[in-house]
Amino acid sequence: MDAYWRASNYLSVGQIYLLDNPLLSEPLKREHIKPRLLGHWGTSPGLNMLYVHLNRVIKRDDLEMMYVIGPGHGGPSLVAHAYLEGTYSEVYPDISQDAEGLRKLFKQFSFPGGIPSHVAPETPGSIHEGGELGYALSHAYGAAFDNPELIVACVVGDGEAETGPLATGWHGNKFLNPARDGCVLPILHLNGYKIANPCFLARIPREELQKFFEGMGYAPLFVEGHDPADVHQQLAAALDTALADIRRIQTDARVNGNLKRPAWPMIVFRTPKGWTCPAEIDGKKCEDYWRSHQVPMGDMDKPEHIRILEGWMKSYRPEELFDGDGRLTAELAALAPTGRRRMSDNPHANGGLLLRDLKMPDFRDYAVAVQSPGAATAESARVMGSYLRDVMKLNLKSGNFRLFSPDENNSNRWQDVLEVTDRCFMADIYPEDDHLSPDGRLMEVLSEHQSQGWLEGYLLTGRHGFFSCYEAFIHIIDSMFNQHAKWLKVCNEIPWRRPIASLNYFLSSHVWRQDHNGFSHQDPGFIDHVVNKKADIIRVYLPPDANTLLSVTDHCLRSRNYINVVVAGKQPSPQWLTMDQAVKHCTEGLGIWEWASNDKGCEPDVVMACCGDVPTLETLAAVQLLREHLPELKVRVINVVNLMKLQPSGEHPHGLPDRDFDALFTKDKPIIFAFHGYPWLIHRLTYRRTNHANLHVRGYKEEGTTTTPFDMVVLNHLDRFHLVEDVIDRLPQLGARAAYFKQAIHERLIDHRHHIEKYGEDMPVISGWKWGAGSAGKAQGTSTKGDNV
Amino acid sequence: MDAYWRASNYLSVGQIYLLDNPLLSEPLKREHIKPRLLGHWGTSPGLNMLYVHLNRVIKRDDLEMMYVIGPGHGGPSLVAHAYLEGTYSEVYPDISQDAEGLRKLFKQFSFPGGIPSHVAPETPGSIHEGGELGYALSHAYGAAFDNPELIVACVVGDGEAETGPLATGWHGNKFLNPARDGCVLPILHLNGYKIANPCFLARIPREELQKFFEGMGYAPLFVEGHDPADVHQQLAAALDTALADIRRIQTDARVNGNLKRPAWPMIVFRTPKGWTCPAEIDGKKCEDYWRSHQVPMGDMDKPEHIRILEGWMKSYRPEELFDGDGRLTAELAALAPTGRRRMSDNPHANGGLLLRDLKMPDFRDYAVAVQSPGAATAESARVMGSYLRDVMKLNLKSGNFRLFSPDENNSNRWQDVLEVTDRCFMADIYPEDDHLSPDGRLMEVLSEHQSQGWLEGYLLTGRHGFFSCYEAFIHIIDSMFNQHAKWLKVCNEIPWRRPIASLNYFLSSHVWRQDHNGFSHQDPGFIDHVVNKKADIIRVYLPPDANTLLSVTDHCLRSRNYINVVVAGKQPSPQWLTMDQAVKHCTEGLGIWEWASNDKGCEPDVVMACCGDVPTLETLAAVQLLREHLPELKVRVINVVNLMKLQPSGEHPHGLPDRDFDALFTKDKPIIFAFHGYPWLIHRLTYRRTNHANLHVRGYKEEGTTTTPFDMVVLNHLDRFHLVEDVIDRLPQLGARAAYFKQAIHERLIDHRHHIEKYGEDMPVISGWKWGAGSAGKAQGTSTKGDNV
Ligand SMILES: Cc1ncc(C[n+]2csc(CCOP(=O)(O)OP(=O)(O)O)c2C)c(N)n1
Ligand SMILES: Cc1ncc(C[n+]2csc(CCOP(=O)(O)OP(=O)(O)O)c2C)c(N)n1
Ligand SMILES: [Mg+2]
Ligand SMILES: [Mg+2]
Repeated sequence: MDAYWRASNYLSVGQIYLLDNPLLSEPLKREHIKPRLLGHWGTSPGLNMLYVHLNRVIKRDDLEMMYVIGPGHGGPSLVAHAYLEGTYSEVYPDISQDAEGLRKLFKQFSFPGGIPSHVAPETPGSIHEGGELGYALSHAYGAAFDNPELIVACVVGDGEAETGPLATGWHGNKFLNPARDGCVLPILHLNGYKIANPCFLARIPREELQKFFEGMGYAPLFVEGHDPADVHQQLAAALDTALADIRRIQTDARVNGNLKRPAWPMIVFRTPKGWTCPAEIDGKKCEDYWRSHQVPMGDMDKPEHIRILEGWMKSYRPEELFDGDGRLTAELAALAPTGRRRMSDNPHANGGLLLRDLKMPDFRDYAVAVQSPGAATAESARVMGSYLRDVMKLNLKSGNFRLFSPDENNSNRWQDVLEVTDRCFMADIYPEDDHLSPDGRLMEVLSEHQSQGWLEGYLLTGRHGFFSCYEAFIHIIDSMFNQHAKWLKVCNEIPWRRPIASLNYFLSSHVWRQDHNGFSHQDPGFIDHVVNKKADIIRVYLPPDANTLLSVTDHCLRSRNYINVVVAGKQPSPQWLTMDQAVKHCTEGLGIWEWASNDKGCEPDVVMACCGDVPTLETLAAVQLLREHLPELKVRVINVVNLMKLQPSGEHPHGLPDRDFDALFTKDKPIIFAFHGYPWLIHRLTYRRTNHANLHVRGYKEEGTTTTPFDMVVLNHLDRFHLVEDVIDRLPQLGARAAYFKQAIHERLIDHRHHIEKYGEDMPVISGWKWGAGSAGKAQGTSTKGDNV
Repeated sequence: MDAYWRASNYLSVGQIYLLDNPLLSEPLKREHIKPRLLGHWGTSPGLNMLYVHLNRVIKRDDLEMMYVIGPGHGGPSLVAHAYLEGTYSEVYPDISQDAEGLRKLFKQFSFPGGIPSHVAPETPGSIHEGGELGYALSHAYGAAFDNPELIVACVVGDGEAETGPLATGWHGNKFLNPARDGCVLPILHLNGYKIANPCFLARIPREELQKFFEGMGYAPLFVEGHDPADVHQQLAAALDTALADIRRIQTDARVNGNLKRPAWPMIVFRTPKGWTCPAEIDGKKCEDYWRSHQVPMGDMDKPEHIRILEGWMKSYRPEELFDGDGRLTAELAALAPTGRRRMSDNPHANGGLLLRDLKMPDFRDYAVAVQSPGAATAESARVMGSYLRDVMKLNLKSGNFRLFSPDENNSNRWQDVLEVTDRCFMADIYPEDDHLSPDGRLMEVLSEHQSQGWLEGYLLTGRHGFFSCYEAFIHIIDSMFNQHAKWLKVCNEIPWRRPIASLNYFLSSHVWRQDHNGFSHQDPGFIDHVVNKKADIIRVYLPPDANTLLSVTDHCLRSRNYINVVVAGKQPSPQWLTMDQAVKHCTEGLGIWEWASNDKGCEPDVVMACCGDVPTLETLAAVQLLREHLPELKVRVINVVNLMKLQPSGEHPHGLPDRDFDALFTKDKPIIFAFHGYPWLIHRLTYRRTNHANLHVRGYKEEGTTTTPFDMVVLNHLDRFHLVEDVIDRLPQLGARAAYFKQAIHERLIDHRHHIEKYGEDMPVISGWKWGAGSAGKAQGTSTKGDNV
């Protein structure tokens, strides 16, 4: 085992340093060494030691185990093991198991045209890049859910442990059901240092550290030392204990039905950073110090450094490890598991291999009946919830679908799913608790990071899910989204990576309807963030009503390798399209709403475009005003449900060809575009379009507070009155008559202000407005009371 | 005390429900109640009880105390106390301390034209909005740093405690120096529930919870109960113990010089959510349950609900609390502290009151000598670090300047600051540790959330700082940035809020030079995110070299109420401007570089614009190629350092007037714009400009991996060769000659690829390229070894 460890250490150093002479069969020279040295040594020896010992128990007990590495900069280590186990050559035949393969393996690492320095999608057996630190435990728990036979060994860097997401990641144990789910074995890699600082967990008393983990509900096992032989013994013993505990817990749950939350084992692995590298280099402490974090010796033009490197590598005694041909000796090779038991070949780590389609009810069955546009009222989110309830129901047996939300499931009006499943909870449950159980498939924890991380882990291992979140707070996981989008982009370029289910976001409680809350809860900018990523990964939908939302939801759940962002409201609002119309509209992605337009058969004077539920409502109300007061005006109404349609077809696969865009939006007529988000996003998507100069966009411009729904749109000039004014301002041909109309409109806005300041709610003519009913209207309450029932 | 508590509870309920009849002097009717009920009751009674007890010890011991409320939806509570203490009426005279004032106080809450539902900037005594949960402890520690007399009582919601940022927030105690800093008294508000779920910390055994806090280095004190009288006793005792402990720790540190990390006290406050509201409503459990989270009873059209509300409010016995005039009885009023000792009037919570300017060295003294453009080489970030070292030095005595970084200070090349201060660390320190001490003013912890939260807390209480971060990972705090930007925007509208120092970001190790890392570390999108916020808050600078960076840094440290984002590299690179030129260039924000242009006295054929250090280098290299091969071509080079200059002056205060923009960028010539970030951001900023149709932008388009610096720009088509090709493609007048040139350029790109794949580093003609030196060049190494020294 120590020899196998030495072999992986040797390969790790070799990848960082060597261009050639991989077996050190001749004296090491400058030209054998890479000119630019890029990579991270410090974490690798510890990861290697852990890997070797996990292999021992996998083989002994025939375990299904995965390895998630928090400090993903330990790429050399995982590549080394995948290579030693043979997986690497199976996947990349060019990197063969001989001296030539070894040379290529070394050269390609962090080298142009080669592989990245991190545990990237290119690395077999990985679901976790670990470039941005903090998500290891969330990913590990996500992978373990609904995989009862799986053990996810999850290494946490002691630096990583200082991040927020990781700090809450430990609490995954309050949501892991020992009967239904697999298990996570966290291993704190307490090597004492991060890039250039000690880690605080390494500098608190041992008893404090012990309490830290016990307080988080674990039973910590300590493995501590500098001497490899000693640590080998300790680690083997700790792993034996851990596995026995896991088996005991699982048996107790599965056989005896004991679902009390157990204290799962975890391991504190305190060993030197950069272990086995030179203790000092140029008189400076290196091993067991942060200087070993990246490349312990940078300047290889110094001959003495070449000697040091050679000595260091030879200290692993490569001649005992590899035969003359560069192949791992048979005796060592026999220590590793084989086939799918190799952690580098675990199918869970290439989730697409295991992915099964969801059983799907027909979304049309959930349609809201819409006699005529605007006649019906519904809470879109709630309708979606009832559909998801049945998706959940149909897949309960397969156990491959979960919903995730940071304590907002009901607030985002998906409460119907509670009819078929519970909220998952492994801590104490009281009689008065509502739909709470260890078997729940609704994952609610007040952490966007944890929700996102769990979902990613779940998807990457071949399952399905949906994440519902307040629109403003989804920014909390902006950077996690980035990393997942980048992961998917790279996977698309790797033939052996199989497609996985898309990551689906449902953003509700959106900027326009933050009733209980105010300015801090208003931010529609996640879409802006999302569209920076590769077009072939990104999809953004803003369905204007429940039937379009149903159609979009169905589509998202069937799609693969995307990130789908769906934004829609939860408040009662008018419904525009029948299911039939909705399906067609969603298939097109955008289109003229004929029933709202009056330009058929001629050129429009103005195009009124809208995207998002609230902007659609305001646009239609504006159109009604226009048609009432300026009946000769030809108005075309376009609704956009698939935002990416606006981009040129060269920039996004969904993009509308210029020809079609010109036909819809005209080449020279004013376009008044009412948008859900920040207005410039529409400019950004359309600046190459012919008629861009005539495009006038209204949207959110950071004005808002706790006020009425209509006042929110007024504050941001997205309301019907401002939209009408925008039209008038852009149509000089309207002439003098328009002046009166404009004045009347201003008066309405003043009425509005007076009314809400007096009564605290919108004027009945606003809240009761209905399409086609003329300007009169009957007040319609907005509901806030449902928000936490 | 119980009466004072009842008074604040009464006011909290009143704010949520009442429009009129504030003293319940007549029977409660429907019209006394708001039509829309918005707000959060559940957390308020607990917050109120804590406030009252803190008041007792403040008064007894004459303490300087601040209150940070994690669950900021407890706005009614803090407003109630500010009102009871008189601060509210001092700040808002219209809300007087009589029945009429009370009526207005109630009405304005969550009402159009009134105040937000949360602890907003409008709330006197607050620095923490708490709308987005998770940052309470980071803010509290930031406020306590360098404020030795201050005690920050920090309430953490038990739901909030599940978030990542809060989970690592506890560890602030490893960085708080009891001699130099004030103290944070965390109070876990264990009311059991969040919006619609129990909290896991409320559902683990008491011993586990105790270990949880002991493991995090605290000495927890438990206060637990349902019976107010009993809890009053327990809480009073716990606070007495806590304050005695704090005094003991501080004395030990300050008098005896004991700087060993103490176990600071904290309080676990386990009381019912919604305490004192009806136990059940409509047969459903309300008090001590999540149903009390927002508005316990929504539908007030039911007469029985009106009766319940009246009974509930009368249970506080208002007639004993307020005199006939609606004024708090003198006896009760005397329980609160007075003047600046009132938590609602603590000057630290209006940091601008205490802000003192930094002593600043003359940044010109740190200038890199630049004989001619490109002649000198420097690491911009490093030069900035030497300047910051002296800013630090000059302000050591005032103790009002700190630097923050997630373990990246040296990696971002600010290591010179370690010459005058240390890294702050309160855990164990070993002899081999490097510049680590309890007195350090460089705050390094591997958490972007913690760094950001500390800095915000530090700034909001009137001090100064700078945050250095890898460009890609600053997205981790996107949402925290949002909240701070929103806070500043609102403060600008509140006359009594005094300006505070700007929040300064230095983003280095940027997308173009992620040497050790790869794709996961490449994301220049933070700027895109930033520009969504209000123009009067946001500033973005991309200085092309060290001298411009110095000038920008000086400017940022002097500015107030902004968020400044500065992006610049850390690698050795050519220096373009003398200090004199740099100051002028930064003052203008953008301008023609005459020495690089050859269009003086005539119209240019093409404008080559650039923004960011790497794009500037590539643009100049492209210009040199053009001028060498197509000498008759008139090229104008424009460099942009202040990104906001590109916006129209109507949209950003820095925006260039259209006239000036047209003069610089011409009305009709092609513009090739090389940009540091995502290219569409430039389109977004300029789409209204006359010449926008001729603008062609190159930037990052999500291509990249671990490769050479030049290859990164090639992969994204931002390199000199692609830029030259862009010019050729846009100037048909170049005709046939250009074809040969273009072919030559393609060949260079092929050479490049072959070279790097063979040698792993850039061709000497690329890495050694110098402005004005012709196409030959001498290789210049890139340095990666400095990254963790
Ligand atoms: C979120 C985040 N912030 C900063 C970094 C930069 N960084 C890369 S490695 C590292 C130190 C990691 O230390 P640790 O987790 O202890 O790993 P190990 O010691 O095993 O290398 C840091 C700060 C990062 N990768 N991710
Ligand atoms: C980051 C974040 N996610 C979600 C929410 C939505 N939210 C508002 S209040 C709340 C529950 C808060 O519970 P807790 O912290 O226990 O506060 P308390 O019980 O004192 O009201 C949630 C999830 C939020 N405000 N912030
Ligand atoms: Mg470490
Ligand atoms: Mg709570």
